[in-house]
Amino acid sequence: MRLTHFTDLSLRLLMYLAIKSDGLATIQEVAERYGVSRNHLMKVTQGLVKYGFVTSTRGNKGGLRLQRPSTEIRVGDVVRATEDDFRLVECFEAGRSSCTLLPACRLKSVLGEALAAYLAVLDRYTLEDLTVPNHPMRRVLGLPEARAA
Amino acid sequence: MRLTHFTDLSLRLLMYLAIKSDGLATIQEVAERYGVSRNHLMKVTQGLVKYGFVTSTRGNKGGLRLQRPSTEIRVGDVVRATEDDFRLVECFEAGRSSCTLLPACRLKSVLGEALAAYLAVLDRYTLEDLTVPNHPMRRVLGLPEARAA
Repeated sequence: MRLTHFTDLSLRLLMYLAIKSDGLATIQEVAERYGVSRNHLMKVTQGLVKYGFVTSTRGNKGGLRLQRPSTEIRVGDVVRATEDDFRLVECFEAGRSSCTLLPACRLKSVLGEALAAYLAVLDRYTLEDLTVPNHPMRRVLGLPEARAA
Repeated sequence: MRLTHFTDLSLRLLMYLAIKSDGLATIQEVAERYGVSRNHLMKVTQGLVKYGFVTSTRGNKGGLRLQRPSTEIRVGDVVRATEDDFRLVECFEAGRSSCTLLPACRLKSVLGEALAAYLAVLDRYTLEDLTVPNHPMRRVLGLPEARAA
């Protein structure tokens, strides 16, 4: 049971934007800080723009920004949007399951309940919660300036 | 986010044993009922024997049985044993993460809390719960006899 690399990078990109004092970053900059592929990060960015978490502007002073304050972006919503496969077992795939138990099995509903509990925990946290205390994190990233309160 | 095929098959094999009135089944029989590969099911069986959920006996009257009553096998324990990868994101891998945020990031603890909530739900259910009401399920599997109460 593992989140996709796409979700992992999505969360890290959003956290990066959340802790930068000017709230602005380029893909190149984030790729370098995290040591990840620029191409992969571009795809992640496209997803985050599409899902309404990030805005991307071109030009000299352009870059990526959070579309809303980090206090308003719930971790659960990010994971719901970026994780493309919540079909925990084969029988979650409508019309594609070959399991003969299907008509009389409670496994699907039990796993569904467990997944709901998982996401409910993530819904209790915002991006802001992930990056507090943010001072050590800014230091780690080499971002010395304090963010305005 | 998806459980492995190994866990999926493990749960289905255990459920099959739980609802058979004599509690005994061969790998061949289960493979045919579910339409899955016998080889794959053999690996799953080896795992379930190793983890203490199933006993396997050879010979004419041999086969697979639950090692304990289905009321005593918690779904959470099966998933914990069979699922080999709970490293939800890269930073769960001790010493292998390249994420520069690591020293100051709360993501790992938040995801860990969500995973605990997921497993806590599964711990509330036993194999018996997954197969109740078991009559329709026995019909689906072509197992007409009622199990002794």
